[in-house]
Amino acid sequence: MNRKSKPTSWYSSNNNNNDDDNNKTLKILSSLMARKSSLLKQTLIACVLFILTVYAFVNAFFTPSDDNADSNARVTSYFSRTLDGISPNSPKVRVYMYDLPRKFTYGIIEQHSIARGGQVAPVADVSSLKYPGHQHMGEWYLFSDLNRPEEDRLESPVVRVTDPDEADLFYVPVFSSLSLIVNTGGGGASSSETVRRYSDDEMQEELVEWLEKQEYWKRNNGWDHVINAGDPNAMLRVMDRVKNAVLLVSDFGRLRPDQSSLVKDVIIPYSHRINTYTGDLGVQNRNTLLFFMGNRYRKEGGKIRDLLFNVLETEEDVIIKHGTQSRENRRAATQGMHTSKFCLNPAGDTPSACRLFDAIVSLCVPVIVSDDIELPFEDVIDYRKIAVFVETSIALKPGFLASTLRAVTTERILEYQKELKEVQRYFIYDHQNGTVNEIWREVSQKVPLIKYMINRDKRLVRREPSKSDCSCLCTNQTGIISSL
Amino acid sequence: MNRKSKPTSWYSSNNNNNDDDNNKTLKILSSLMARKSSLLKQTLIACVLFILTVYAFVNAFFTPSDDNADSNARVTSYFSRTLDGISPNSPKVRVYMYDLPRKFTYGIIEQHSIARGGQVAPVADVSSLKYPGHQHMGEWYLFSDLNRPEEDRLESPVVRVTDPDEADLFYVPVFSSLSLIVNTGGGGASSSETVRRYSDDEMQEELVEWLEKQEYWKRNNGWDHVINAGDPNAMLRVMDRVKNAVLLVSDFGRLRPDQSSLVKDVIIPYSHRINTYTGDLGVQNRNTLLFFMGNRYRKEGGKIRDLLFNVLETEEDVIIKHGTQSRENRRAATQGMHTSKFCLNPAGDTPSACRLFDAIVSLCVPVIVSDDIELPFEDVIDYRKIAVFVETSIALKPGFLASTLRAVTTERILEYQKELKEVQRYFIYDHQNGTVNEIWREVSQKVPLIKYMINRDKRLVRREPSKSDCSCLCTNQTGIISSL
Repeated sequence: MNRKSKPTSWYSSNNNNNDDDNNKTLKILSSLMARKSSLLKQTLIACVLFILTVYAFVNAFFTPSDDNADSNARVTSYFSRTLDGISPNSPKVRVYMYDLPRKFTYGIIEQHSIARGGQVAPVADVSSLKYPGHQHMGEWYLFSDLNRPEEDRLESPVVRVTDPDEADLFYVPVFSSLSLIVNTGGGGASSSETVRRYSDDEMQEELVEWLEKQEYWKRNNGWDHVINAGDPNAMLRVMDRVKNAVLLVSDFGRLRPDQSSLVKDVIIPYSHRINTYTGDLGVQNRNTLLFFMGNRYRKEGGKIRDLLFNVLETEEDVIIKHGTQSRENRRAATQGMHTSKFCLNPAGDTPSACRLFDAIVSLCVPVIVSDDIELPFEDVIDYRKIAVFVETSIALKPGFLASTLRAVTTERILEYQKELKEVQRYFIYDHQNGTVNEIWREVSQKVPLIKYMINRDKRLVRREPSKSDCSCLCTNQTGIISSL
Repeated sequence: MNRKSKPTSWYSSNNNNNDDDNNKTLKILSSLMARKSSLLKQTLIACVLFILTVYAFVNAFFTPSDDNADSNARVTSYFSRTLDGISPNSPKVRVYMYDLPRKFTYGIIEQHSIARGGQVAPVADVSSLKYPGHQHMGEWYLFSDLNRPEEDRLESPVVRVTDPDEADLFYVPVFSSLSLIVNTGGGGASSSETVRRYSDDEMQEELVEWLEKQEYWKRNNGWDHVINAGDPNAMLRVMDRVKNAVLLVSDFGRLRPDQSSLVKDVIIPYSHRINTYTGDLGVQNRNTLLFFMGNRYRKEGGKIRDLLFNVLETEEDVIIKHGTQSRENRRAATQGMHTSKFCLNPAGDTPSACRLFDAIVSLCVPVIVSDDIELPFEDVIDYRKIAVFVETSIALKPGFLASTLRAVTTERILEYQKELKEVQRYFIYDHQNGTVNEIWREVSQKVPLIKYMINRDKRLVRREPSKSDCSCLCTNQTGIISSL
């Protein structure tokens, strides 16, 4: 922690160059001095001392030296300090991360392990706990990001503060998605009578009880809090009590419009489970036209999958296979996605599915058949450049999908692949300037609206109960049939 | 345009100065080494020169020089260029202002003048035209602001660009509010048969026809356009055709929720018509408890006014007077607002009214009785600190308002006044860092959401017509009865 970090920004390296320059000047001066008469020597010493004083003054003014890395000192952020008077639109947003009771973070990792026959007693050193990989592990990356030393976070759109009074936002780093799957593994100690079965519902209730006791939650009724609920089922039991917060979600499949929306919340990507394709662009090694591997039978919007199977499984250049999550199937899916031109992304139980993000990192052009899908970072990503959208009823027309995709030229596929390559970093959680930074950027953009709602809520007078008080942004598009 | 732009940031000036400093230092050193006679003198001169250089360096550091005003060079803004790699949340938003046909801007000033017996033929030099003062003249200040040379706009949150391809937003500087009142003056040439009567409806239709032919309007269906509709009746006839734009409005009184909302649009202040109070804080010269002067009879929400008259006109320390717009009444209102502790702000035909902003600059604590009012800049202004909110039915209880206000201590009134003084600049359109900058700041904050909607709209597939596609932010507060 105390090691002097290397300059990570032009700002500090710039200062280091100043140091070098000055050192050289001083060396020249001192070597000169060594050979001069004493009068000259004294004058020069006085002169040098004066210069050094001025230099120290300049330096102190401009250099947030690396060893004053007290996060408090950085609270006002580079921008507000150095560009004083110019006043950029937004200085860095300041985030306070709650030090949650262990049962809401590391405790869940332990429970996950216990349920799979791992250690039973809590470990002393949390750093020995490994968060298990799964498609909603974004919660782990955000938590880890804020736990990094601030000097490693200079590129982040947010700065972590240790004093809640300085915070714009409050992050609640509960592992809400992992909590959902603690008991899904089957077997292990969970079947043993000695261990009380973990309850996600209880965890949710306890978290909200804890939260509602917090001064900063009560202060603004939760508006300025950020909660990760990546799995469409996460936090669902207590959603009405946490809905004011900025929710990080995969879609709105299980949420009512008054609980969650594009305006208030942030759509986050699933954590891709398939390796990033690192080969060359092109279709030489992509002989399959369209690939899908996943559960054929899903509820609600996902019912379309079975219908798509019917339409597509007779097409020769299409691979469409039923398969559930397993290491072996993941290998097969990797192989399939890395050797196909297009990857099919039908809705699952909810409009989103991890497969989209697997396709993106595989440079396999996604074919999205999910009419209510919402997409992450859509302010900066034009998804028509990286994916094909097809309206459901059209996609089900026999022959349509396969013949339309076959007609796409190699040049066009290359264009898609090039764009996919461009945006890959947005979907890689452990990229140094990837998903995590982009999520914080999106969250930061909510701050003005959050502050607006906080102030407005407190002065709103009683209204007729019949009047709802919602501010909406509505689209008035009739919608496309296919983006091809 | 090709002249080499001077360093526009401390970063580049820093580098340049480093070079200069080093060159000078080396020159001095070499001259020192070359001649050894009169060595002391030389050294002293060198020392002074060096100190001067360091001083110049420090100076350049702190002074963003004013003559670096090439607007194209500034397009990418200080932030994106100089902080490369750190990437602040938002570089300056780039605004392109349409060069509208004259009939939508200066032509309306002319028509207003003609209707009042002014000149009949269009003037050659538009700078001789004076935009007439009225409560919705914000449109004039925004137009004038963007017409100022960029070097005078350094503090603005937006930068004007002359190339529409570089723009984030497009400003349509129509004088929509002035257009509404062209014919309201009565008399003058408008009664003459020789001059065709001006039609605001026709102006609106013609503007939309013009707009819908513009490439940049069509490109994103108007989402990235900004239109001033300050008067609650402005642009109303064509609202459904311009509703995608960011509307600058006084309230939502005449607008449907799918046309306008806090999320998409910006609430702007009326232009105050009463002089700013420049005297000391305090209540010594404010003997009236509560003051109101304005139209007693209004439609819709404004019906409350007559009821408030009934309740308040018998109170001894309250002045509540019926009066319409006139120069004389404005003088009386100024006198009243500058000598009262509280100023009553009931709803008008729509929830907002200019009186609130007159009260604010008069340091007369506003008492807002308008349940559906929306307030400008509420993300940065906590109105409970500068105004009293009272729910309508409570305000109408005989005796309640006067006795509640009488109970407010002088200290509390002083606190209100101090806060009012603090925020005055937000409500002064011709303040150098006043309303105009704040409006642009609010508009800038919409950009991420606008870009989101633009990208999303284009890939949305056809949905069931029954499904509305709105993203909402809803308050779930029951509301207060009185903020006192």
